[in-house]
Amino acid sequence: MSGGQGDEKSDPHPFDVATALTATGEPDVFTGRTHPAYANMVGPFGGITAAVMASAVLEHPARLGELTAVTVNFAGPVQEGDYRLIARPVRTNRSSQHWIVEQWQGDSLATSATAVTALRRGAFESTEHLAPSVPGPQELTPVRYPPMLAWPDRYEMRFASGMLEPGAAPAPESESVLWVRDSPRRALDVRSLVALCDVFFPRAFLRTGQFAPAGTVTFTAYMHAAPEDLAAHGDDFVLGRAVGQRFAGGYFDQSAALWAPSGELLASSHQLVYFKS
Amino acid sequence: MSGGQGDEKSDPHPFDVATALTATGEPDVFTGRTHPAYANMVGPFGGITAAVMASAVLEHPARLGELTAVTVNFAGPVQEGDYRLIARPVRTNRSSQHWIVEQWQGDSLATSATAVTALRRGAFESTEHLAPSVPGPQELTPVRYPPMLAWPDRYEMRFASGMLEPGAAPAPESESVLWVRDSPRRALDVRSLVALCDVFFPRAFLRTGQFAPAGTVTFTAYMHAAPEDLAAHGDDFVLGRAVGQRFAGGYFDQSAALWAPSGELLASSHQLVYFKS
Repeated sequence: MSGGQGDEKSDPHPFDVATALTATGEPDVFTGRTHPAYANMVGPFGGITAAVMASAVLEHPARLGELTAVTVNFAGPVQEGDYRLIARPVRTNRSSQHWIVEQWQGDSLATSATAVTALRRGAFESTEHLAPSVPGPQELTPVRYPPMLAWPDRYEMRFASGMLEPGAAPAPESESVLWVRDSPRRALDVRSLVALCDVFFPRAFLRTGQFAPAGTVTFTAYMHAAPEDLAAHGDDFVLGRAVGQRFAGGYFDQSAALWAPSGELLASSHQLVYFKS
Repeated sequence: MSGGQGDEKSDPHPFDVATALTATGEPDVFTGRTHPAYANMVGPFGGITAAVMASAVLEHPARLGELTAVTVNFAGPVQEGDYRLIARPVRTNRSSQHWIVEQWQGDSLATSATAVTALRRGAFESTEHLAPSVPGPQELTPVRYPPMLAWPDRYEMRFASGMLEPGAAPAPESESVLWVRDSPRRALDVRSLVALCDVFFPRAFLRTGQFAPAGTVTFTAYMHAAPEDLAAHGDDFVLGRAVGQRFAGGYFDQSAALWAPSGELLASSHQLVYFKS
């Protein structure tokens, strides 16, 4: 199904429903609700929670500038249902602003975050982290994940390398490279870019050949793309790469990057993941 | 000067003085004071501020487990003098704990942070991000930074590549690789490891050939080394590598790694840096 675009007004995209917030009238406080289309094994897909935390900043009336960095800490499981977000601008400078965001369910803190919004300026431009050279998405086959999880169906993924193969032997390296976009298709924006930064399954699955419990503990994304670049991107694929750096003591760190088809580095992202093996 | 170790009791290491906190008796609240030995161009060296934020967690009586991740947001300049830290355990799970830390001077938030402490467990172990192959520290020359900054004198740095050369042409790539340790020498621990993650000068200096204003906006470090590995390390050098990924809109992201001489990846770190050019 790829005809979602024409129906936007009558049939909002599940990403927009899942990240929709309601201002409560109380300063800094929003409410929202988990969406079954982005359900993970336990609670929602981490990327959608990260996008929700970013949304509270983006929708805050006191916001200065664009989202340039966000760190999301997955403190405890998010239960299906309603949540309350508190997004506080804790320091506002001339060209940047710092935020602390908390997601509460009842009297339990589910998620905390910090974010930086800023005005961009003209300065030296260069990309050192280049996109890997891989076949285009049309030359690759879309993957289907097992139907026990909802959220992978919200993404069309076409792997160039590092696909999970059930029953495969442990891989010697944890790198995956894939083309990915929202499904149904949706024009890229900074919120969906935040979510895409977390679209990579835990690297431990590849290295151990096991689907044992694993979950992101803390996640950071740096947004490089200017809003006009995102607007020009439309609903095309982005190229994603993820790789683990060290697995030790039941944790590993995973770094990811997302490029436009033109080779523009849109976002870079890092996370620490808890895993069993 | 390398004889600091024998004098530890009578003459505490400047790192320990600069990160010393006083419990106020009020729950979660500590006080501290900037130290001139770690002064930067404006305010203290970011790495010492990051270590101070981590120290508030490490010294908190309710702490569970070891520091595994910390994100520090440099919200505004830290003024020379006293500060107040509030370190709150915002969620405690069975094997992990989430923290929000704030550094205040008067009624101004200078720095915010989140941290994760956790119990490590036995699990699959592997290092994918390998140390670059470079000459040992004894084969390299210690560098002297210009005397206008205090904090670089607190580190002995021996560059294998990517040294700043005054008047040099812009470099085509931003990678630096160097051996580094505290000066005077000090046994490595998790606090000094946090500070070492920020020891790399802004990558923009190499790429533009200019020493224009630049400052870390947000910094994240993942700690891979177990305490027993750090204890075994002693006061030896660590090998550090830093590289920029994309420079755009007046910001760039910089990723770093620190290895023991044995090749063990002790910590990985990422930051978003504001710069002019």
